[in-house]
Amino acid sequence: MSDAAEPGITAPLGFRAAGVSCGIKAKGLDLALIVSDAPASAAGVFTTNRAQAAPILVSRRQLEASGGRAAAIVVNSGCANACTGPDGLEHAVAMTAETAAALECERSAVLVASTGVIGVKLDMTKVGRGIASASRALSREGGPDAARAIMTTDPFPKEVSAEIASPAGTFRVGGIAKGSGMIEPIMATMLGFVTTDAAAAPALLQRALKAVVDETFNAISVDGECSTNDCVFALANGASGVRLEEGDFALLVDALRRVCEPLAIGIVRGGEGATKLVTVRVTGGTSNGDARRAARAIANSPLVKTAIHGGDPNWGRLVAVAGRSGADFVPDAAAVRIGPVELFSGGGPHDERSPEAAAYLKGTDILVEVDLGTGGSGCFQMWTCDLSAEYVRINAEYRT
Amino acid sequence: MSDAAEPGITAPLGFRAAGVSCGIKAKGLDLALIVSDAPASAAGVFTTNRAQAAPILVSRRQLEASGGRAAAIVVNSGCANACTGPDGLEHAVAMTAETAAALECERSAVLVASTGVIGVKLDMTKVGRGIASASRALSREGGPDAARAIMTTDPFPKEVSAEIASPAGTFRVGGIAKGSGMIEPIMATMLGFVTTDAAAAPALLQRALKAVVDETFNAISVDGECSTNDCVFALANGASGVRLEEGDFALLVDALRRVCEPLAIGIVRGGEGATKLVTVRVTGGTSNGDARRAARAIANSPLVKTAIHGGDPNWGRLVAVAGRSGADFVPDAAAVRIGPVELFSGGGPHDERSPEAAAYLKGTDILVEVDLGTGGSGCFQMWTCDLSAEYVRINAEYRT
Repeated sequence: MSDAAEPGITAPLGFRAAGVSCGIKAKGLDLALIVSDAPASAAGVFTTNRAQAAPILVSRRQLEASGGRAAAIVVNSGCANACTGPDGLEHAVAMTAETAAALECERSAVLVASTGVIGVKLDMTKVGRGIASASRALSREGGPDAARAIMTTDPFPKEVSAEIASPAGTFRVGGIAKGSGMIEPIMATMLGFVTTDAAAAPALLQRALKAVVDETFNAISVDGECSTNDCVFALANGASGVRLEEGDFALLVDALRRVCEPLAIGIVRGGEGATKLVTVRVTGGTSNGDARRAARAIANSPLVKTAIHGGDPNWGRLVAVAGRSGADFVPDAAAVRIGPVELFSGGGPHDERSPEAAAYLKGTDILVEVDLGTGGSGCFQMWTCDLSAEYVRINAEYRT
Repeated sequence: MSDAAEPGITAPLGFRAAGVSCGIKAKGLDLALIVSDAPASAAGVFTTNRAQAAPILVSRRQLEASGGRAAAIVVNSGCANACTGPDGLEHAVAMTAETAAALECERSAVLVASTGVIGVKLDMTKVGRGIASASRALSREGGPDAARAIMTTDPFPKEVSAEIASPAGTFRVGGIAKGSGMIEPIMATMLGFVTTDAAAAPALLQRALKAVVDETFNAISVDGECSTNDCVFALANGASGVRLEEGDFALLVDALRRVCEPLAIGIVRGGEGATKLVTVRVTGGTSNGDARRAARAIANSPLVKTAIHGGDPNWGRLVAVAGRSGADFVPDAAAVRIGPVELFSGGGPHDERSPEAAAYLKGTDILVEVDLGTGGSGCFQMWTCDLSAEYVRINAEYRT
């Protein structure tokens, strides 16, 4: 397995990509194309926000209509094409049509995504120019440019790939992602695109993608928000000659997770104002769902996030947030650990260990663990970041 | 009705109060007593946090055992007596016993509340001294001292009273509250105490208090947290000679709201780092519950709160947060107003009105309104504050 110097999204065989600048953003790459040489199985996971952007509506419909087949993904940054009414829908459809024309494929084989300003319409002249030049620029080395072209205020591009040696044969997975930087002037959006040169039926790919997204992209939080434009797409084109069947579900999930987990963690590391990556691990729940409830409350708690920012081993905030999360919680049997230091257990604190925990919190990769004390085996892990004054500055003052 | 210069909690007839310093806090008043000369009907609303502090457990049990009767409330600040195990329970019980002894009443007639540090035990020598001196200091003029003695990092005391002239006769309501300043070093706690010299059966008082708390103390948010120690108590002693019956439910609710609403708003105004009071009004929901869901998401959204802090009329964040709140939401029929300025309706923005809305946001009392667009009549109103870098500073750096 090589996760390092590979060109993320184009590491799998039979994929080409490009990232170009067409003037939607004031500067930098702003339009990406990801293309499979052969029609691929396609899967998508979409935002649960009820205000869904036009490209979300169009791509969702496309996946349903095609029965989970696609050959290309076109993505622009700098404009979310959200809250743009009928014009917005027309523009999203036009993006798929122009991409299909440039690639000489069916319009139904093109997925579309957008990220950027809400409530502003796309300049379709610029977009059309971008699609034309991106389709000419497609190459096996285009992954890094595509990763940059989907960025908004992300501090760095996020791309990962892995080679999987399995009993079924060797295949590759790759991916790029962006978010959660604030998109001027409106909303953070998370986008993820994953490719593999294994073959997998659309239904299998969809189930595996959903399972992996639930524990990776859907298990991160920068500020608890959920955008109008969030989506993750996966394409599986079979170019490796490896065919994954129902019995290989666990293998496919593991392969997708190899890419999605580091991409998701990369989004948190690049979160607005983030100075620390915080892994929140909850155990001892009556169910995984209950553990998830507690983990989500902790990962979104401004009290927990500011304490970690300040290097304060404040176990009391963790107890209080777990207690209010709605999860079953037995204080007398619960435990709180910050890194290797147990600060609360058996219904009482171990405050003499505070200095040790404070020293641990000086690091940039922080683990906090809460055992809910129910005796159950429910567990869930999330990733979040600390809450800094810089977050407030970015989100309050960027227009000034 | 006079809401102004009255001594809040002792404005109703037949109540005395005191606030003294007994050394639980490094300085300032830290123990309050509120006493009804005659046994009163009592009601309580408690935190939903599953990690409940000892005084919450003791007061809840006391209310159940007495069938909703009480004559005194003893409250300390500076120590929450939470996560303190069996010792903590013993201490909370002892507080009620020592208060009962000092007042020569039944132990079952005493309610107890605490606020302050989690995980630290009460110094019962100091508490005992405080109870003794507070019981000697009780007076009709003691309300303001009591209001100060329950404060932690609150920037100002919160006390309100009102005289209600009704067909049933004239009676008074009064109250004090504290929160949501961060309690060093752990957790914000909200406490509210309400008195009235009307008589009302315990069950009627409980129902009315619950109804009012749902729309006042439970309709505010500083940072979306919920403490281990939150509680609101009401005492009704009948000293005015006015007796409220089942048919007077609406009158009692209105009377309690006269006190609880300004107290709750006062807590938000005094919220950590708050520079603006924000009223969030949601209409057009399929139900009040749905409107509440959307209002709560908006009131707790760091994106909305930072935008308002920065004076940015960012309607897109309001649309996006309403959309992800879980409430039914019809973007094409939804509307967003900031103060008097409609910025989004009919599925599209009115960005030409942005400067007008930006000027409005320079004020300190801000109204934001979201119509969910379902055509339903569900509505809910909440109060929150902006999110400032000062909030992060208070919560991240107070130990340094």
